[in-house]
Amino acid sequence: MRDVAIVAAGMTPFGELWHASLRDLCVEAAMEALKNAKTDQVDALFVGNMSGGQFVGQEHLGPLFADQLGMSGVAAMRVESACASGGTALRAAFAEIASGLSETALVVGVEKMTDATDVTEILATAADQENEVYHGITFPGLYALIARAHMQAYGTTEEDLSWVSVKNHKQGALNPKAQFRREVTVEEVMSSSMVSDPLRLLHCSPVSDGAAAVLLCPLKEAKKYTDRPVKILASGLATDSMALADRRELASLDAVERSARKAYKMAGMGPQNMQVAEVHDCFAIAEICCVEALGLVEKGKAGSAARTGYTALGGCIPVNTSGGLKSKGHPVGATGVAQAIEIFEQLREEAGERQVEGARIGLTQNMGGSGASSVVHIFQKV
Amino acid sequence: MRDVAIVAAGMTPFGELWHASLRDLCVEAAMEALKNAKTDQVDALFVGNMSGGQFVGQEHLGPLFADQLGMSGVAAMRVESACASGGTALRAAFAEIASGLSETALVVGVEKMTDATDVTEILATAADQENEVYHGITFPGLYALIARAHMQAYGTTEEDLSWVSVKNHKQGALNPKAQFRREVTVEEVMSSSMVSDPLRLLHCSPVSDGAAAVLLCPLKEAKKYTDRPVKILASGLATDSMALADRRELASLDAVERSARKAYKMAGMGPQNMQVAEVHDCFAIAEICCVEALGLVEKGKAGSAARTGYTALGGCIPVNTSGGLKSKGHPVGATGVAQAIEIFEQLREEAGERQVEGARIGLTQNMGGSGASSVVHIFQKV
Repeated sequence: MRDVAIVAAGMTPFGELWHASLRDLCVEAAMEALKNAKTDQVDALFVGNMSGGQFVGQEHLGPLFADQLGMSGVAAMRVESACASGGTALRAAFAEIASGLSETALVVGVEKMTDATDVTEILATAADQENEVYHGITFPGLYALIARAHMQAYGTTEEDLSWVSVKNHKQGALNPKAQFRREVTVEEVMSSSMVSDPLRLLHCSPVSDGAAAVLLCPLKEAKKYTDRPVKILASGLATDSMALADRRELASLDAVERSARKAYKMAGMGPQNMQVAEVHDCFAIAEICCVEALGLVEKGKAGSAARTGYTALGGCIPVNTSGGLKSKGHPVGATGVAQAIEIFEQLREEAGERQVEGARIGLTQNMGGSGASSVVHIFQKV
Repeated sequence: MRDVAIVAAGMTPFGELWHASLRDLCVEAAMEALKNAKTDQVDALFVGNMSGGQFVGQEHLGPLFADQLGMSGVAAMRVESACASGGTALRAAFAEIASGLSETALVVGVEKMTDATDVTEILATAADQENEVYHGITFPGLYALIARAHMQAYGTTEEDLSWVSVKNHKQGALNPKAQFRREVTVEEVMSSSMVSDPLRLLHCSPVSDGAAAVLLCPLKEAKKYTDRPVKILASGLATDSMALADRRELASLDAVERSARKAYKMAGMGPQNMQVAEVHDCFAIAEICCVEALGLVEKGKAGSAARTGYTALGGCIPVNTSGGLKSKGHPVGATGVAQAIEIFEQLREEAGERQVEGARIGLTQNMGGSGASSVVHIFQKV
């Protein structure tokens, strides 16, 4: 298997981008990545997108985007794994380069959500349609069940949940691309509207538009495009039962643990080697469960990790320095690629005020549905 | 790059399968493939599906199907490239095995179309939404434009188109899995209802439900699963402009030609080496344009190929011995995988009454939209 590197990145701001269509967003992010790599051609294009069909009536995004980027002819495909579509597209592109099928692959994660009126229902098509959605539950409800289970099992409190949002907003305030570039207090979080008990509005990531792109090539060719490539050490992809009712227990996310185990094994490393991590905080409880499943915080003890600063910028293992899905925004198909960009910038020492000093190894974890799919990548400064 | 083989296959009948849901279809095809390989576990699952979200309200098919197959935990993803989703999922699985990321990969192509009432509109989300669909055109209209252009450029006639349907129905009549297992006469085709001039009902593939599955592993491990593996010699994936208006010319399908060129180069072969081919006959004109773009018939001369028997069973290069999309049916995400199964069976001498004697090398070509994406695979008897 050939070593693979990320050599360039591009990203739109995340937010309610009324001026931009799905294809506009793709072009903006992709062109920035290509410009940074000083190239205008690639062999293959991988699109991470959850539901262009339902959100804006457009499937078949591989050839459409190749066309819009002036590279019609290249190999192209769309990869979907709900909110893990971006990270999973990165995995598919990694395989394409590692296998030798292509010499360069552009990964574009993108979602245009704000044009749709029934976003919660569209997102719910990523849950089990027959066994969950049919009965009326959507993702805030599913994650509320996970939160209640974690509270019951480990004594996690509503205040613990709220500190995740406080931390991520504080970090996102330093990110020029973030949708909500402002801090919030724990009191503001705890007095925001109840969405699905115990999850309040400020425990939930927003509805967003946005795109993120990275360019991959074999590590040994990376110097053609940049003097600071970042090596993809490992890719771990795994699943869990779709319906929460079939899980071993509600307070654990086994797909995350499995994907992490695969990635750590491939990298020959463990959680103790990670210096910065972007994890899937679609709801505050998700970050808590994910950092436990990744082994970054001991099982059952992540409730207090944000409050104590253990997972904050300056702490033992800074999590979601970008602001995470909560503050940066969550255009679902773009999220996994945007996570990779944050780690790419951290390892290149380009993260500005969010920089984790001396970071040489970092991790991304991107999740689909209520944890039915998860993909972990580990990156290393070269 | 490791050599990759197909070692087992499974497939539902194609048709209006009112008794079966999307997940039922997946399970039936996948379990048959696993049973044939005498295994119940794989490392990775690749799902080819165009639009579970729009057709039946279900995205995130990777973990859902892994769950339904009792293999929750495995790596899984859905790949979409409109009607080329199945062939493109096969390509992604090929990269996964070739790279060494996984040792076994199950590819399931599936679509459940007959539960939806607005199938033509859903399919049209695979065309250019802003520049084509907005103006009211759907795929029968787009392919009618291609047909008229081919008629004008090369003198192709409505009777030529009709012979494609006659040939494919004759061959499909021999296929126990085909949706329309009966022959039609050229008179019947030419007197069927006009859908979009010059395309009549019997020039069009039907709306179908169905699933098809193949199991991949490294060639050197293939004997664990079968004594008759089929090697995947090459995979070529390419694109063209999304909107017909941007094409070099309407009567040529450049994505097909590009994907074929890549595959022939990778296999170290040319069209003259192919002994049997499954090509994307979503409309009769598509088969005509595709066999030309693949180089199986000289450019501009495919109009008469079905009529003269050149592309029929017993002819120089039998095309769509399965019955093709026209007679076998076209559950869009399943089609590309079903094409691979037909060639797999041909090269294993398991095609029964449809057997091409002595076939050792065969090709599949699966297309998305009006030819914006195309994927070609070349297979060899081991």
